[in-house]
Amino acid sequence: MMKWITSANVACGFHAGDPDVMARTVALAKSHGVALGAHPGYPDLQGFGRRAMTLSPQAISHAVYYQLGALDAFARIAGTSLAHVKPHGALYNLAARDAISASAIARAVAAYDPKLILVGLGGSALVSAGSEAGLRVANEGFPDRAYLSDGQLMPRDQEGALILEPEQVASNAVRLVTEGFRGGDQAFRIDTLCLHGDHHQAVTNVRLVRQALEDAGVEIRPLAWLLAA
Amino acid sequence: MMKWITSANVACGFHAGDPDVMARTVALAKSHGVALGAHPGYPDLQGFGRRAMTLSPQAISHAVYYQLGALDAFARIAGTSLAHVKPHGALYNLAARDAISASAIARAVAAYDPKLILVGLGGSALVSAGSEAGLRVANEGFPDRAYLSDGQLMPRDQEGALILEPEQVASNAVRLVTEGFRGGDQAFRIDTLCLHGDHHQAVTNVRLVRQALEDAGVEIRPLAWLLAA
Amino acid sequence: MMKWITSANVACGFHAGDPDVMARTVALAKSHGVALGAHPGYPDLQGFGRRAMTLSPQAISHAVYYQLGALDAFARIAGTSLAHVKPHGALYNLAARDAISASAIARAVAAYDPKLILVGLGGSALVSAGSEAGLRVANEGFPDRAYLSDGQLMPRDQEGALILEPEQVASNAVRLVTEGFRGGDQAFRIDTLCLHGDHHQAVTNVRLVRQALEDAGVEIRPLAWLLAA
Amino acid sequence: MMKWITSANVACGFHAGDPDVMARTVALAKSHGVALGAHPGYPDLQGFGRRAMTLSPQAISHAVYYQLGALDAFARIAGTSLAHVKPHGALYNLAARDAISASAIARAVAAYDPKLILVGLGGSALVSAGSEAGLRVANEGFPDRAYLSDGQLMPRDQEGALILEPEQVASNAVRLVTEGFRGGDQAFRIDTLCLHGDHHQAVTNVRLVRQALEDAGVEIRPLAWLLAA
Repeated sequence: MMKWITSANVACGFHAGDPDVMARTVALAKSHGVALGAHPGYPDLQGFGRRAMTLSPQAISHAVYYQLGALDAFARIAGTSLAHVKPHGALYNLAARDAISASAIARAVAAYDPKLILVGLGGSALVSAGSEAGLRVANEGFPDRAYLSDGQLMPRDQEGALILEPEQVASNAVRLVTEGFRGGDQAFRIDTLCLHGDHHQAVTNVRLVRQALEDAGVEIRPLAWLLAA
Repeated sequence: MMKWITSANVACGFHAGDPDVMARTVALAKSHGVALGAHPGYPDLQGFGRRAMTLSPQAISHAVYYQLGALDAFARIAGTSLAHVKPHGALYNLAARDAISASAIARAVAAYDPKLILVGLGGSALVSAGSEAGLRVANEGFPDRAYLSDGQLMPRDQEGALILEPEQVASNAVRLVTEGFRGGDQAFRIDTLCLHGDHHQAVTNVRLVRQALEDAGVEIRPLAWLLAA
Repeated sequence: MMKWITSANVACGFHAGDPDVMARTVALAKSHGVALGAHPGYPDLQGFGRRAMTLSPQAISHAVYYQLGALDAFARIAGTSLAHVKPHGALYNLAARDAISASAIARAVAAYDPKLILVGLGGSALVSAGSEAGLRVANEGFPDRAYLSDGQLMPRDQEGALILEPEQVASNAVRLVTEGFRGGDQAFRIDTLCLHGDHHQAVTNVRLVRQALEDAGVEIRPLAWLLAA
Repeated sequence: MMKWITSANVACGFHAGDPDVMARTVALAKSHGVALGAHPGYPDLQGFGRRAMTLSPQAISHAVYYQLGALDAFARIAGTSLAHVKPHGALYNLAARDAISASAIARAVAAYDPKLILVGLGGSALVSAGSEAGLRVANEGFPDRAYLSDGQLMPRDQEGALILEPEQVASNAVRLVTEGFRGGDQAFRIDTLCLHGDHHQAVTNVRLVRQALEDAGVEIRPLAWLLAA
């Protein structure tokens, strides 16, 4: 799938991944010229990081440091570097709503390396916290997920949370990118799209989305380029 | 105990330690001016890394990268840096005897940061591998452990493996430092001493050893200084 | 400490404990004639099960089955059996307040073995759920912890949550046992007391509480006996 | 795949599996009338239990108790019971060669439940230890793996260790069952066959083996039946 995407989020051993998998994924991303991102999550292998855990803000910061450092070692060895950070699963969802947790993450990322881009749910608390911490931020949109009226993602265990049809995923992608998004009483642009690798039509989704965006005249670039523009 | 020692080895989450503990230990080491070392081990929390595991050389390298990176993040945030690396437990023992594993560790450390000092059992395969990899190395001696005639440590589960009397620990320390050690048919000097924090007389040991070394006219310095001399 | 207490709660490997520790603890409890209880918790070794996790009711049931079965094996080998079940840490606190989680736990225990006693915070949702599931229940009181006005325990990270003075712990114990407790608009009796093994005065607490209860004419018995009365 | 096989080995959380997966697998096995077996392994999720670990015989026993108990809970809840035990991965291989470890496993199984069948590599130390411990044993053959001349399996990382062609797997199966096997200077019969679920042709293998055995007039039965015959 590496050949269709422009950036990869690598699990760092807390909710998935281990040193061997991380080494392979970093090498693969590098050989495909795909931007490398850290995907820190809760320490919950059993639940794949999709179950909320009540960590203190300080414990969240420590978990972010640990996971960034661990992945960074593989980037360093491979002669590349981390481009962005995107929290995973339940940590991502918490950081979209909760300003304190969002700030703990954003400040940890900024303290570790202020050149990293922070990726959060478009218009969410995490994106705001990233800006406040002085980071470049990317508003993320989810063409294969349904949204709630307040701009949050519909939880995975609710009926209709996952968009199953690749054609609909592709049209969502074009709309998100060209029209932006309304969440609550805010409008904001979408800088980056997330497509899930574990979707039953993952490869088709990526292909159709890419085609639909090109047909709509959208130029696809790595995050660093988009945000530098 | 920080006030009696010159260097600390911090577990990196595989056999012990977690992000919160690592953050605290790094802060404590820094505030006491104690040199910071990584203590990578096998991924075996249950057995505290004291049970051998048959990892491939490549898997050993990956485990070293991961743990160095994770700890390095805390050093970076605290405004300090790693000074040395010392494998833990069964990984240390394997690397003392097995040239292939020793080389996997030494080359991983050198690839991660060639300025790091590699600490290994005095005269062992790990020290040789470190030198071959272009690293500065430190020959370690164990005043509170018994040695086998080939220079390896007596395994912990054997009768007499642990030296229980602080006075004997202190005299061992002076002998190791001033006379060096004979292992197999080799003689070598001892650059650094290890005292176990989980010894029943840990604090007394550190105090008596320090006193005995000073009485013997030995100057105690951080590793980096000794090795630069 | 085994000689002062009448029942022991054994961690089952999820938040603490491992097969070796469990084998030792079961043997110790048996040799002291102490009733054996399972102490199932969240799968969170790093946080010692003290951090809430959002498991589904079904996942909670499965976690209870797994941990009961694992500990039961050691009881069986040692020629003894489990007497009670008491959830640990954040799972205990959740089950004190949340009827759905409480029911998931209670029904899992009843399905596993309906002769087990379920121990919960005195007057809490867990005790009610246990009764509904047909289990014998024990209302637990905490002489070394402060209570909120609704009968829940004050969270550990709040000032004053832990009672530090053994004398106050002992007087709390007598009051809880002889007067019962008022939580919300309910009054209820206390069947069993919990003293934390990690309290800085743990051994003194147990001794003073025991003495104070005897002075007050309270007879101390294993849970099974009390509840059969 | 459940419909082609007569017995399933369920990982118990140490090298793979978790409470949710175990609950589902036990339910699936029961609904297909497939005999349920425990598949205890080393505590090594990262390495899928395929890396040897130096556990003491006592630690091996404890690990077996823990895993048997955990799985047994799900069997009990589902109204079924465990029929057999087969160690997994590196623990299986160790027990095939090392009499002390084999005995630790066999005696732990017998102490837990003497009615359980112990499955080990045909003619190996584990099968002998099971017989000595008073257990019914099953000699297992591997049609999709190459053997060494001493009757041990060729290690997975050696060239040719895995038989790739389903037709050859099927003919190996018939030969193993009808002619038995020669390992070292011993001949022995094969009671049960193992086909790996992670083989690239897993489903084809099962189908062809089943067909080939039927064509050869071999009657396929659950272990308990075969061994009772």
